[in-house]
Amino acid sequence: MEGKSNLSFILNKPHEVVYAEREVPKLQSPHDVLVAVNYTGICGSDVHYWQHGAIGHFVVREPMVLGHESAGTVVEVGSAVSDLKPGDRVALEPGVPCRRCRQCLGGKYNLCPDMVFAATPPYHGTLTGFWASPSDFCYKLPDHISLQEGALVEPLAVAVHIVRQGRVSPGQSVVVMGAGPVGLLCAAVARAFGASKVVSVDIVRSKLDFAASFAATHTYLSQRVSAEENARNIRTTAGLGEVGADVVIDASGAEPSIQASLHVVRTGGTYVQGGMGKSDITFPIMAMCIKEVTVRGSFRYASGDYALAVDLISTGKVDVKKLISEVVSFDHAEEAFKKVQGGEAIKVLIAGPNEKL
Amino acid sequence: MEGKSNLSFILNKPHEVVYAEREVPKLQSPHDVLVAVNYTGICGSDVHYWQHGAIGHFVVREPMVLGHESAGTVVEVGSAVSDLKPGDRVALEPGVPCRRCRQCLGGKYNLCPDMVFAATPPYHGTLTGFWASPSDFCYKLPDHISLQEGALVEPLAVAVHIVRQGRVSPGQSVVVMGAGPVGLLCAAVARAFGASKVVSVDIVRSKLDFAASFAATHTYLSQRVSAEENARNIRTTAGLGEVGADVVIDASGAEPSIQASLHVVRTGGTYVQGGMGKSDITFPIMAMCIKEVTVRGSFRYASGDYALAVDLISTGKVDVKKLISEVVSFDHAEEAFKKVQGGEAIKVLIAGPNEKL
Amino acid sequence: MEGKSNLSFILNKPHEVVYAEREVPKLQSPHDVLVAVNYTGICGSDVHYWQHGAIGHFVVREPMVLGHESAGTVVEVGSAVSDLKPGDRVALEPGVPCRRCRQCLGGKYNLCPDMVFAATPPYHGTLTGFWASPSDFCYKLPDHISLQEGALVEPLAVAVHIVRQGRVSPGQSVVVMGAGPVGLLCAAVARAFGASKVVSVDIVRSKLDFAASFAATHTYLSQRVSAEENARNIRTTAGLGEVGADVVIDASGAEPSIQASLHVVRTGGTYVQGGMGKSDITFPIMAMCIKEVTVRGSFRYASGDYALAVDLISTGKVDVKKLISEVVSFDHAEEAFKKVQGGEAIKVLIAGPNEKL
Amino acid sequence: MEGKSNLSFILNKPHEVVYAEREVPKLQSPHDVLVAVNYTGICGSDVHYWQHGAIGHFVVREPMVLGHESAGTVVEVGSAVSDLKPGDRVALEPGVPCRRCRQCLGGKYNLCPDMVFAATPPYHGTLTGFWASPSDFCYKLPDHISLQEGALVEPLAVAVHIVRQGRVSPGQSVVVMGAGPVGLLCAAVARAFGASKVVSVDIVRSKLDFAASFAATHTYLSQRVSAEENARNIRTTAGLGEVGADVVIDASGAEPSIQASLHVVRTGGTYVQGGMGKSDITFPIMAMCIKEVTVRGSFRYASGDYALAVDLISTGKVDVKKLISEVVSFDHAEEAFKKVQGGEAIKVLIAGPNEKL
Repeated sequence: MEGKSNLSFILNKPHEVVYAEREVPKLQSPHDVLVAVNYTGICGSDVHYWQHGAIGHFVVREPMVLGHESAGTVVEVGSAVSDLKPGDRVALEPGVPCRRCRQCLGGKYNLCPDMVFAATPPYHGTLTGFWASPSDFCYKLPDHISLQEGALVEPLAVAVHIVRQGRVSPGQSVVVMGAGPVGLLCAAVARAFGASKVVSVDIVRSKLDFAASFAATHTYLSQRVSAEENARNIRTTAGLGEVGADVVIDASGAEPSIQASLHVVRTGGTYVQGGMGKSDITFPIMAMCIKEVTVRGSFRYASGDYALAVDLISTGKVDVKKLISEVVSFDHAEEAFKKVQGGEAIKVLIAGPNEKL
Repeated sequence: MEGKSNLSFILNKPHEVVYAEREVPKLQSPHDVLVAVNYTGICGSDVHYWQHGAIGHFVVREPMVLGHESAGTVVEVGSAVSDLKPGDRVALEPGVPCRRCRQCLGGKYNLCPDMVFAATPPYHGTLTGFWASPSDFCYKLPDHISLQEGALVEPLAVAVHIVRQGRVSPGQSVVVMGAGPVGLLCAAVARAFGASKVVSVDIVRSKLDFAASFAATHTYLSQRVSAEENARNIRTTAGLGEVGADVVIDASGAEPSIQASLHVVRTGGTYVQGGMGKSDITFPIMAMCIKEVTVRGSFRYASGDYALAVDLISTGKVDVKKLISEVVSFDHAEEAFKKVQGGEAIKVLIAGPNEKL
Repeated sequence: MEGKSNLSFILNKPHEVVYAEREVPKLQSPHDVLVAVNYTGICGSDVHYWQHGAIGHFVVREPMVLGHESAGTVVEVGSAVSDLKPGDRVALEPGVPCRRCRQCLGGKYNLCPDMVFAATPPYHGTLTGFWASPSDFCYKLPDHISLQEGALVEPLAVAVHIVRQGRVSPGQSVVVMGAGPVGLLCAAVARAFGASKVVSVDIVRSKLDFAASFAATHTYLSQRVSAEENARNIRTTAGLGEVGADVVIDASGAEPSIQASLHVVRTGGTYVQGGMGKSDITFPIMAMCIKEVTVRGSFRYASGDYALAVDLISTGKVDVKKLISEVVSFDHAEEAFKKVQGGEAIKVLIAGPNEKL
Repeated sequence: MEGKSNLSFILNKPHEVVYAEREVPKLQSPHDVLVAVNYTGICGSDVHYWQHGAIGHFVVREPMVLGHESAGTVVEVGSAVSDLKPGDRVALEPGVPCRRCRQCLGGKYNLCPDMVFAATPPYHGTLTGFWASPSDFCYKLPDHISLQEGALVEPLAVAVHIVRQGRVSPGQSVVVMGAGPVGLLCAAVARAFGASKVVSVDIVRSKLDFAASFAATHTYLSQRVSAEENARNIRTTAGLGEVGADVVIDASGAEPSIQASLHVVRTGGTYVQGGMGKSDITFPIMAMCIKEVTVRGSFRYASGDYALAVDLISTGKVDVKKLISEVVSFDHAEEAFKKVQGGEAIKVLIAGPNEKL
């Protein structure tokens, strides 16, 4: 890696970001690989750390490299790695679990209490030159998937996990609350899972227009009315009759959306909480109980989600390219954050420090 | 049925109950049987109709016979009935679904929108002399189960359904919020399902003492502290460490209990809402989301629940006799309601009008 | 129905079929509808009864109307029917269960021991003028689905049930043994369920060519070699590496195919027996055991299968029209049977006796 | 470990076993612990290697220490181990998976293709003085469980895995083919899972007598008649009527037992292959298909099985002590093998080389 930059984009404290050269990481295990980062997308959580320095219990106490939605190129492999070689292009799964706890051994490594997750304090992120990772958390991209698409695998894996938590199956009707990047991808994944009706709901008309062009079969502009009335309107819009939707996904985190979710889901249906928001909200608990709704949370991604996300792109079932609003060079990283914060862009990619645009 | 009374205990309007002779029902189908009612337990919903004349959307608009937790003796069978004969002693499943809707054909008949349920307006209940029912909603009692125990099959089936919704499996830790009849039975069913730790939680010490003698391995007297602190205390009491409980069942319907439920359940665990209460409550949605808790409502009982309830009594796994505080004759029905309302009794049975005590 | 023919195509004994006018059926229940049959497909089981007069325990002892894959037009509805009206075009689900047994109440009505199934002795089939059915076993066809497509809903529902038994999910690899009508439809349904690779296997090259044009991503011409070697070849053909297929469906009933199925399925994968064949075969039980393969049988169709089959046609995910080799008039029914038996056709439809071609 | 023996019981080739001192193992990772082996049970697979030098693909090509059913005492812990300390008494899970493959990350580590399993060639077993293991594959024994009981955790975990594969639930009827150690433990675990009827089937009357005293509610002595007739007899014996058993477990590996299994299981029931036997057998495939039986293999144990096995002993639900026929000192190891081979004993334990009896 001589002569190569490991320049990193670092959050010192809220609103204060700097660039600094850091040492290129060494492989810690014969199972590790070193990856040159080509592209990194910006996520709402990155923006939140940049603005507030914390999400819930996770507080940035020391300077932290931002970024966790990345694709890169393998430059070095450990002695025990047989499935990757230098030159391979990979999507990076940015959270590595302990592999030893009850959750890990039980196949739910996303729930590992000792997870090391990129750009979640105190761990550095991927807006840097080189990234070391166990090889099993690097997913080889087929030749026909670009590295820019590869950077979208992370948010797509989030959506895959949410839709799987919803047990979406062919022929079903699915309502997705929120038409931001995750909501859009949930709509697309729900279609790929065979849903016959996918209703995107948002409070911004332009987002709904995009959703309709991307994946939704129906859209509904949420009104300032009761949750029950919004639910009734959604049913009418989508021709769901009195029955309601088989699955409702909240990708907004907004209290009114969650309330409407419980009213629009059918008796015996499923509602998944995929978006982050207030800790405590007013919740229609008896509607949930009497309709025997199954409610599930969704947190990051686990076994098989990344592989399926790559497959959905590879087979053309989800066209993530449409979500890329802009690609900027590494030295424009802060501007990219501003654009995402301002809502001017769906997804902005930042090229790696060694990447020429 | 000549000479037999079909005297019925009828709610005219809130607080006003009367006795009246009604015509003995005729079999409506060759699959029906006629049952002489021997014993009927009183449920919180019966008391609620008596006091308020309504539960949610269900409003008593015309005089309605109360009662739905009954056992009786077959006195007549339709021409297509082969599995029951006069003299058979049976537990009555009091809700008969349409058998034709999506929910029924899919095996979730408790969610049938056209359910005809005893003592849910506008349908009459079982505090009467004779009751006609499809034979497949009558469960033959083995010889060694008494008719009084048979009247407890209904609330036990409620608990079976709740515990099944919780997917309770051997070795698990289960917290049950509330130590009323349903909470007690949930604790006992959880033990029968192999739970190694069952923690009963209530605000009344004497109920917890009973729970400990009945089924709970641990008890916790809920304090007037935050939901998080009650959750911590429950974990400490039951030796659950930092991890929390595998399954939490709310059989109370109380807002603080529901909140504590979400804090005491482990990451990846399950919480079931089994108790009825306020329509909307403040709910720790992000705790549910981040821990990927599975939440399920539970409504009445469905396929196999009644049969399993009979089996649990038959095999001695749940001793429902302990819950019977008192048995009164039919002419003391209103006094029985008062005792249940006043909390002086766990479960009071009312003998049928043709039953001598 | 005055003036309308209820001409029926009747199997008297093996190889002896006759036409006879029978009385137009009367509605037996207010929930029933009367349907004029427009088109009926011929199934392998129809041919088998025609040739052999029996399938397993089911023996034709009295003259029996053949046929069970039909679509028709509602001509009369019972007083309790609200979701259908005369003129509605419907696919007919030809088996009506008892609605009262453990299997029915549990949502698996296909396993009802008292099923009344068309053209399974002693019950008459649908190659007749008019057919009475409970309304919930008639599925309304959207305007853009033709009645000829409607006659294909039955075999498509068979395939839906098989693929559901396989729990096929997005991104998976699926091998389908046999490229007859059911195998072809299984391949198409697996694609609709999101399978990324679908390998059709047969011993007839022309069938594989059709499979490739219809739904399969890969095909393999089965060789006269060991089951292990055929399995290895299938893995190579489809790029499945050492791992094997996630799901293998046998739609052939042939012993060598079943053996190869167990060898080509991956460790932890699923194999479904969908085709009928010999009662007892040599089976690689230890391969199944050590790989912890989940094996499921599939028998007819149950809750939701017909509705999903209609939806798959309606949304264009499965183009059943391609399977229709020929449509003949009612008086050519026996010739149609001969063509199917001879393997000259994939699917032949017989128009109803009142249908003009 | 100065002055401590690491004497080992080694299979050189079929029928030739020797004792030899080997170097005490070193901890390979900060997550490892070193355990002094106290007791080791003998399994049929140990006996098979001793007699034949191979099981299927696994061939003993170099001298191999035998034994894999062990409990011991922690004598040293790695720097990253926090949940165990020297002096802790533990049951040893003898197979350590790679933690990195698709099966491991998906929670099915028993299916890991790179499993390192004790006494499965080329890996040494636990009939030795000291054993090094990752701490998460050592299960602390509660004070009231003896080390001899601890050596039974391994076969009990095998039974737990089998019963879980059968999805045995409360109230069910379970038939267990074979009343050897694993069959007996399956019967006991099925009872602990709430099965109401557990039928043990064997060809040896004395084994059935033991089964009846240990866990079975019913027993059946298999006859030299057809599989169908044995199945009918089992149904009659256990009062299962025409319906058959909910779950059938084959713990025998014998062809006639497997055939009878498929005939005695009810429509829609589950059959698990838990015993090892011939690679290929004559199998009633159409009975499986038409009854939609779910068939599962069971291989070793995975996430949670060991922990539940310890819990079942700890809570008194399974009394493994009853299975211990004899405990011999380390220098009598070969005699112990002979007794197990000769069928004179259910389970013989061999004390560790440093253990005084």
